[in-house]
Amino acid sequence: MRDMRGRDVLSILDFGREDLEGLFEYADIIRKRGVSGRPLQGKVMALAFFEPSTRTRLSFETAMKRLGGDAIGFTSEEGTSIEKGESYVDTIRMLDAYSDVIVVRHKYDGAAKLAAEVAENPVINGGDGKQHHPTQAMIDLYTLKTLFGTVDGLTIGVLGDLKYGRAASSFILGLTHFRPKKVCLISPPQLAARREVLDQARERGLPYEEVVSLDEVIGDLDALYVTRIQKERFPDVEEYEKVKGAYVVTLELLQKKAKRDLKILHPLPKVEEIDPRVDQTHYASYYEQARLGVPLRQALLLKLLE
Amino acid sequence: MRDMRGRDVLSILDFGREDLEGLFEYADIIRKRGVSGRPLQGKVMALAFFEPSTRTRLSFETAMKRLGGDAIGFTSEEGTSIEKGESYVDTIRMLDAYSDVIVVRHKYDGAAKLAAEVAENPVINGGDGKQHHPTQAMIDLYTLKTLFGTVDGLTIGVLGDLKYGRAASSFILGLTHFRPKKVCLISPPQLAARREVLDQARERGLPYEEVVSLDEVIGDLDALYVTRIQKERFPDVEEYEKVKGAYVVTLELLQKKAKRDLKILHPLPKVEEIDPRVDQTHYASYYEQARLGVPLRQALLLKLLE
Amino acid sequence: MRDMRGRDVLSILDFGREDLEGLFEYADIIRKRGVSGRPLQGKVMALAFFEPSTRTRLSFETAMKRLGGDAIGFTSEEGTSIEKGESYVDTIRMLDAYSDVIVVRHKYDGAAKLAAEVAENPVINGGDGKQHHPTQAMIDLYTLKTLFGTVDGLTIGVLGDLKYGRAASSFILGLTHFRPKKVCLISPPQLAARREVLDQARERGLPYEEVVSLDEVIGDLDALYVTRIQKERFPDVEEYEKVKGAYVVTLELLQKKAKRDLKILHPLPKVEEIDPRVDQTHYASYYEQARLGVPLRQALLLKLLE
Repeated sequence: MRDMRGRDVLSILDFGREDLEGLFEYADIIRKRGVSGRPLQGKVMALAFFEPSTRTRLSFETAMKRLGGDAIGFTSEEGTSIEKGESYVDTIRMLDAYSDVIVVRHKYDGAAKLAAEVAENPVINGGDGKQHHPTQAMIDLYTLKTLFGTVDGLTIGVLGDLKYGRAASSFILGLTHFRPKKVCLISPPQLAARREVLDQARERGLPYEEVVSLDEVIGDLDALYVTRIQKERFPDVEEYEKVKGAYVVTLELLQKKAKRDLKILHPLPKVEEIDPRVDQTHYASYYEQARLGVPLRQALLLKLLE
Repeated sequence: MRDMRGRDVLSILDFGREDLEGLFEYADIIRKRGVSGRPLQGKVMALAFFEPSTRTRLSFETAMKRLGGDAIGFTSEEGTSIEKGESYVDTIRMLDAYSDVIVVRHKYDGAAKLAAEVAENPVINGGDGKQHHPTQAMIDLYTLKTLFGTVDGLTIGVLGDLKYGRAASSFILGLTHFRPKKVCLISPPQLAARREVLDQARERGLPYEEVVSLDEVIGDLDALYVTRIQKERFPDVEEYEKVKGAYVVTLELLQKKAKRDLKILHPLPKVEEIDPRVDQTHYASYYEQARLGVPLRQALLLKLLE
Repeated sequence: MRDMRGRDVLSILDFGREDLEGLFEYADIIRKRGVSGRPLQGKVMALAFFEPSTRTRLSFETAMKRLGGDAIGFTSEEGTSIEKGESYVDTIRMLDAYSDVIVVRHKYDGAAKLAAEVAENPVINGGDGKQHHPTQAMIDLYTLKTLFGTVDGLTIGVLGDLKYGRAASSFILGLTHFRPKKVCLISPPQLAARREVLDQARERGLPYEEVVSLDEVIGDLDALYVTRIQKERFPDVEEYEKVKGAYVVTLELLQKKAKRDLKILHPLPKVEEIDPRVDQTHYASYYEQARLGVPLRQALLLKLLE
């Protein structure tokens, strides 16, 4: 495994399979044995969250604080110098002057990359634009690894908004590091995965197929990765109303058609795309997935900063 | 004293007199000798503040940080996943996955209890609905203990909005653990204590009486617990204007009618219900009361988490 | 150097040259050798930011956290007890009860002084009103010291809004502790330095002159301290449009007229007053200046709290 010290984490494709597996092993050790001492004592992580987030922010903070480090930053543009007209680049330079690592969350594609060009310290993409959320993809892959022992050989569904959802895109790209048996990309045609994501998946040999109907493929799946379909993505409400029901994972559907051992993942937060009665069943792996976010991010921070 | 490790703190009635006295002794030790080392190092407290609060939040944070622990969380719904439509229960599950203890503040009765049903880690009610704010009641009782040596035998007034004010209700319930000589519940009839609070007070043998006039009883009191009367609680402004003056604690009133050693408590923040000239007198015990919040909450966190 | 333990930091004039030089030496040591151990472990700093700020807040937090301490507080009035009508003085008393030092940021002159009268623990003015921002002035002077070895003998320009800008006023007052050769106060007449600042500068023997044109004096300067001119300071927009161009530091101007070694400082954030092409040149010292904020504030916190 390559040395990750000081590296930026911009896209899940910046890493190799070996890097990821090294990270997963490290996270396993942290989970099982804990962390001894305060390895990141005196280190400061800057959170540059230009877009709101609860989960990514709080799990990064938790990871850092459990390692003895600390966090500073902001969680929206409100009340920051950005409002006074400071440039994005100057804001990043300031955070770089104060901290040892910056986590950027931004609505525009490329924001984390730009930050990395300006900052001397490592930059972690905490989700930018429509495509990249590499630490979420790491957690998703780590969850599959934890649930199934391996990602190779699995039949995996990715459901929902594959066009605008950065978690789904990053997950698809992340799967290209492994050898799943098949990946079913399940979405209404309006929200199919973007060409640049599919091109990379194809080039990197991912055996995927695009389907519109969850019903037809659910019986084949070992794991189903669910994401939210947002009403506002549709040009008109009628179209949305027409499709939305077909992408809700109900308990009936699971009991009737799914493999008994199907595991459901979700980057969370979820709204209505999963029937709440599923939450308490053995299918629901999303709370476990959220829980794995902390040791995974601890492992990553240790590898970057230690 | 019973072991408090891992327990939820939902209502002041969840605890016995012995629990509270054990807690007060522990807080005394912390106050006098300090805390040695960093007993909660690596522990993380989640603040789930769905309703704003400065005092409760900052004193919990201070308590945790002085013990070597740390805090994460949010201080309003704004910018959290709640705004994206995530369920309350899922939000609590997330915080439970990241932290070792959750402090909940919420406008609805029962919110902390629901959180405790979902979370594996202890949940502390940082104030929910109209009735429960158990750590505030602990601080109030601890303040009486510190000022008078005991709560037993005291004549205590509780003034203001006894209907909607959760601090006042919790304090009244908290007093039922002890043997005060008499408790005068002083409020305009519109804001008298709720039936369920009075029923419990009666059942638990609290010698209380309900009065409308502060003037008539102030001379009997050893301690007066003041809370704010909010204009918006009154159906019409005129009614409010009529009563408000009668519930303002002025320096003249104190000098003319109160016992020389009367101690005034207030959960704070205060607005106009206490004449600012009282702040610098020996009657004012509310700043001391605020100060005692930190060691009391330190003692509680240690008992729950150590 | 006098003992600074427990002192308030309200104005740059509260300190003597010796105090400042002691502070700069201490900051140098921190920068070169780091800090050993966790000297402020268990200490809590309260941030009372009634007005937004990113830089001051984050660099204070970073300084505190790198020393092993921690921070609590609020970053705007929103969601605090101030909104419920609590008095400023009661809010400060609360923070004083919880923390070991308070940093105040407020739009009104004298707010930090009032806090210091109420609080038992030291109060640091993190910028209040139009005149005082003492820790910014310390950083500015420390930057000159770092860049030039000394402040004495330098020719220094102070450009921009000298009337309402608290950083510029504090810097001018701070310069009176030293013996610069000349200080050029460069501003449109509407934004000239206030009488009370000029009076003190004169009394304390600062050799200053007021000029309107940057062009005429830039060739003499060793250092140029730039601040922003805000549109809203002008009674009418036309007047603003007329002057604004004359106070923008362009690369052409620097290359044509400035000394080759001119150093440009800026308290940041900057908007349009410095040509972005200057950022990457040897003139630009403002990022270095921002960077020096952390060790300087670490030195200050150590002197106050250790």
